[in-house]
Amino acid sequence: MTIIRVFEKPKLKNPLLVEGLPGVGNIGRVAVGYLVEELKAKKFAHLYSEHFFPFVMLHENYQIHLLKNEFYYWKAKKPGQRDLILLVGDCQSLSPNGHYEVIEKILDFAEGFGVKEIFTIGGIATGEIEEKPKTLGAVTDRELLAKYRKSGVDFTAGKKVGYIVGAAGLLVGLGKERGIKGVTLLGETSGFPIVTDPKAAEVVLNTVTRMMGLKLDMSKLDQRVKEMEKFIKKVETLQRKALTNMGKDEKAPVKEEEQLRYIG
Amino acid sequence: MTIIRVFEKPKLKNPLLVEGLPGVGNIGRVAVGYLVEELKAKKFAHLYSEHFFPFVMLHENYQIHLLKNEFYYWKAKKPGQRDLILLVGDCQSLSPNGHYEVIEKILDFAEGFGVKEIFTIGGIATGEIEEKPKTLGAVTDRELLAKYRKSGVDFTAGKKVGYIVGAAGLLVGLGKERGIKGVTLLGETSGFPIVTDPKAAEVVLNTVTRMMGLKLDMSKLDQRVKEMEKFIKKVETLQRKALTNMGKDEKAPVKEEEQLRYIG
Amino acid sequence: MTIIRVFEKPKLKNPLLVEGLPGVGNIGRVAVGYLVEELKAKKFAHLYSEHFFPFVMLHENYQIHLLKNEFYYWKAKKPGQRDLILLVGDCQSLSPNGHYEVIEKILDFAEGFGVKEIFTIGGIATGEIEEKPKTLGAVTDRELLAKYRKSGVDFTAGKKVGYIVGAAGLLVGLGKERGIKGVTLLGETSGFPIVTDPKAAEVVLNTVTRMMGLKLDMSKLDQRVKEMEKFIKKVETLQRKALTNMGKDEKAPVKEEEQLRYIG
Amino acid sequence: MTIIRVFEKPKLKNPLLVEGLPGVGNIGRVAVGYLVEELKAKKFAHLYSEHFFPFVMLHENYQIHLLKNEFYYWKAKKPGQRDLILLVGDCQSLSPNGHYEVIEKILDFAEGFGVKEIFTIGGIATGEIEEKPKTLGAVTDRELLAKYRKSGVDFTAGKKVGYIVGAAGLLVGLGKERGIKGVTLLGETSGFPIVTDPKAAEVVLNTVTRMMGLKLDMSKLDQRVKEMEKFIKKVETLQRKALTNMGKDEKAPVKEEEQLRYIG
Repeated sequence: MTIIRVFEKPKLKNPLLVEGLPGVGNIGRVAVGYLVEELKAKKFAHLYSEHFFPFVMLHENYQIHLLKNEFYYWKAKKPGQRDLILLVGDCQSLSPNGHYEVIEKILDFAEGFGVKEIFTIGGIATGEIEEKPKTLGAVTDRELLAKYRKSGVDFTAGKKVGYIVGAAGLLVGLGKERGIKGVTLLGETSGFPIVTDPKAAEVVLNTVTRMMGLKLDMSKLDQRVKEMEKFIKKVETLQRKALTNMGKDEKAPVKEEEQLRYIG
Repeated sequence: MTIIRVFEKPKLKNPLLVEGLPGVGNIGRVAVGYLVEELKAKKFAHLYSEHFFPFVMLHENYQIHLLKNEFYYWKAKKPGQRDLILLVGDCQSLSPNGHYEVIEKILDFAEGFGVKEIFTIGGIATGEIEEKPKTLGAVTDRELLAKYRKSGVDFTAGKKVGYIVGAAGLLVGLGKERGIKGVTLLGETSGFPIVTDPKAAEVVLNTVTRMMGLKLDMSKLDQRVKEMEKFIKKVETLQRKALTNMGKDEKAPVKEEEQLRYIG
Repeated sequence: MTIIRVFEKPKLKNPLLVEGLPGVGNIGRVAVGYLVEELKAKKFAHLYSEHFFPFVMLHENYQIHLLKNEFYYWKAKKPGQRDLILLVGDCQSLSPNGHYEVIEKILDFAEGFGVKEIFTIGGIATGEIEEKPKTLGAVTDRELLAKYRKSGVDFTAGKKVGYIVGAAGLLVGLGKERGIKGVTLLGETSGFPIVTDPKAAEVVLNTVTRMMGLKLDMSKLDQRVKEMEKFIKKVETLQRKALTNMGKDEKAPVKEEEQLRYIG
Repeated sequence: MTIIRVFEKPKLKNPLLVEGLPGVGNIGRVAVGYLVEELKAKKFAHLYSEHFFPFVMLHENYQIHLLKNEFYYWKAKKPGQRDLILLVGDCQSLSPNGHYEVIEKILDFAEGFGVKEIFTIGGIATGEIEEKPKTLGAVTDRELLAKYRKSGVDFTAGKKVGYIVGAAGLLVGLGKERGIKGVTLLGETSGFPIVTDPKAAEVVLNTVTRMMGLKLDMSKLDQRVKEMEKFIKKVETLQRKALTNMGKDEKAPVKEEEQLRYIG
């Protein structure tokens, strides 16, 4: 059960899908979240799944919130720009096979709007405080190297990292199977968990806006990141708490004096 | 495989679905169970699922009992009251994704009877003995705040709790996706496991009956809770035992002298 | 993926399904296995499932053997006897939800032959060496108590045990939902794992043959149990080994010097 | 979701399917990989699955690579040879039930090309350094013993090993259910993980080429194994790392001062 609810069916011209779901340093989440806000992109669909955590969150004291991924669109204003579908959200899949199912659903949906290219944004945990974080990149097709090398991406991500887990990797990996081209952009960050890294996010944002022919006012980034961080931290803490409690249940000791005996 | 067996198809007028499945303090289970008994509500369907524990229970020495959730209905007697569908049961889903599947099945079923509003009842574990437990609440739609604030619900659950796990949360969260309005009512309880908290249940029962235009004789609550508790405790103990045994199997040491060798 | 392969479609008259899959003390496995051999019942179908362990066994040095459950039939010879479908096998489901799926498949199959009554045979682990083990029983329908009380079953299993895990419980529990009547027969055994208890199996066999109007030569039981035990022990050991190895993989330490870093 | 993408539909005459996926000692992976290279077999399809690890790998610094199994074909050149379908790949299923699903998909695909016989190649972990490793074998049908005994296979694998996990076992076990004959060839190796054993691979390669009427130049084996090993090691390390990280997430401690409380 993975469901996409569509509120509006915008006509988009050769749109680029840009993904920024929670992950290492929450760089993708923060970067694409800032894009959504600064571009005033419009929400037109959301997705929920049995592969997300089985709980709802409470916002602003009283509001029940189902865990979701959200789709926004933005239409190009100038030559050199492209229509965009921006994908952000609360979480990724809880189970390994769920990742594949959710991503395939997203790709089905994106193909319906004619998506032929995908950018995914994530972080790479270097284990060190990065003074001058770079944007590392990887691609599904060699020709993309030439196309985007001018934008300042260091396409040697494979030297520093062996794999890309979850949406940032599978969206482009599974997309390639459908003939969709993909670029993964990774901001260098220390990688300590539950830390949102606005510096790395800014570096990636600069790269990605260059690649899309956009100019973005970055002055509000720090403040926005702080606002987003509160929410991101909450989801992360709750998910961790939920996992811990699930685990606890499974290990709860059973007192010996309980005289029930078991049959097979 | 989640199956609902229907014994009777009652004609109900704008029924309210009220859920009380096992959870923290078993407040929902006890409160809605008491509603079923005091209103003499009639069982008309039950649900079982591959997502429940893979065992049957033994009742009254000899009786084999499949784990189930049960649906009861009650028809309004007076103006200001509403037809009710009451949902109680032995257990919730064992697996995270199972929660979503079971809840969607329940919502499909409820929609067939024209359900447009859901109350879910649960407990909130405060970690302390609560002298004067309150009913905390959360809603899916802002307008419900005004509608139900008079009933004494403290709609600031989000201040004390970040999420609502399982049926109490997902029924209203997923219900909202179908245009069904939802209220979650949470009784404050210490939250130590395997404890049924009749005091908190009474507080929530008082709230919820007020919200439904009902008057309930509470004098039998203590005794009924004691009766129910025996059963609830048994299910909980068995589930815990089953989980422990499942776990044990997986960690059973294999003696080295067993000379079988393994191939891949 | 749970598949039943059928070799022959026997015409059976109101057949009784008797299940004896591996479990506590392997009492069901041994008892129904002995029935198969002494009655010279004929194999007519087998079942395999993605919910079984993902390995094949090696028999007689060179023979590859897929894990299976097997169906045998036997036709009544005298008045007072009934046609039988005997269900034995190598294993039960590995995953909790798999139990439900496999059992539903078995019930679909049994219904196709007109099965209206099921006996399941298992063991009850008492934690003590039983000098005079009894056959404890439980039923899905009260009327079965009267029908079978004369056969010497002690229908107070619920006093000693709270639940019945797996096929022995779910076959009758889920069967009841289809209008099939069910009796579970449980031999008292100490319950130490990887022990096959021929004494308890004999007690249950005596009971069950009485219930079915059969007379069985028990003189070969001890020897047959020894033969079967070798095989049963092997499957159990391999399953335990497989589980341990699966577990080991998941906990394998990763050396810190491996300089690969991870991305999200 | 297990998908096979087909690039070409070769006409093959009674082809033999030869499987060599990663496993103990990576003997199958290395042996069939060498066959692919030396025979210049042609890739005509690949398979990916939700049961594989939810990540992509990075090759040659910049290239995104989805985890896959790959099918190659080779047409017989001389009398006494047979058309071949060679199956190699990055990994096997992550979940127990996934093994069954992926293997069934492979069998569906193989049947479409008229496959009536399968060889699977794996390793048997003996726990000791093997001076003169042998090729042990097992079969699904007794008649295969006579057919292949001349080739030097020691068909007493069952003496040394109780089961065969994953593709090497299930391909022939499930294949038999479709009337496909199967031989499993196992090279003796010490079995320490993350070790590729070229000596055992060579022994099995000699056996299998004899069985297929092929002559192979083995002089490049050592070098090829070294090249392959780098890649195999990387996948293994990443999978282990991924599993460890998944595990870590689930056990992450939650600080007590986080004042969020949990509801059920």
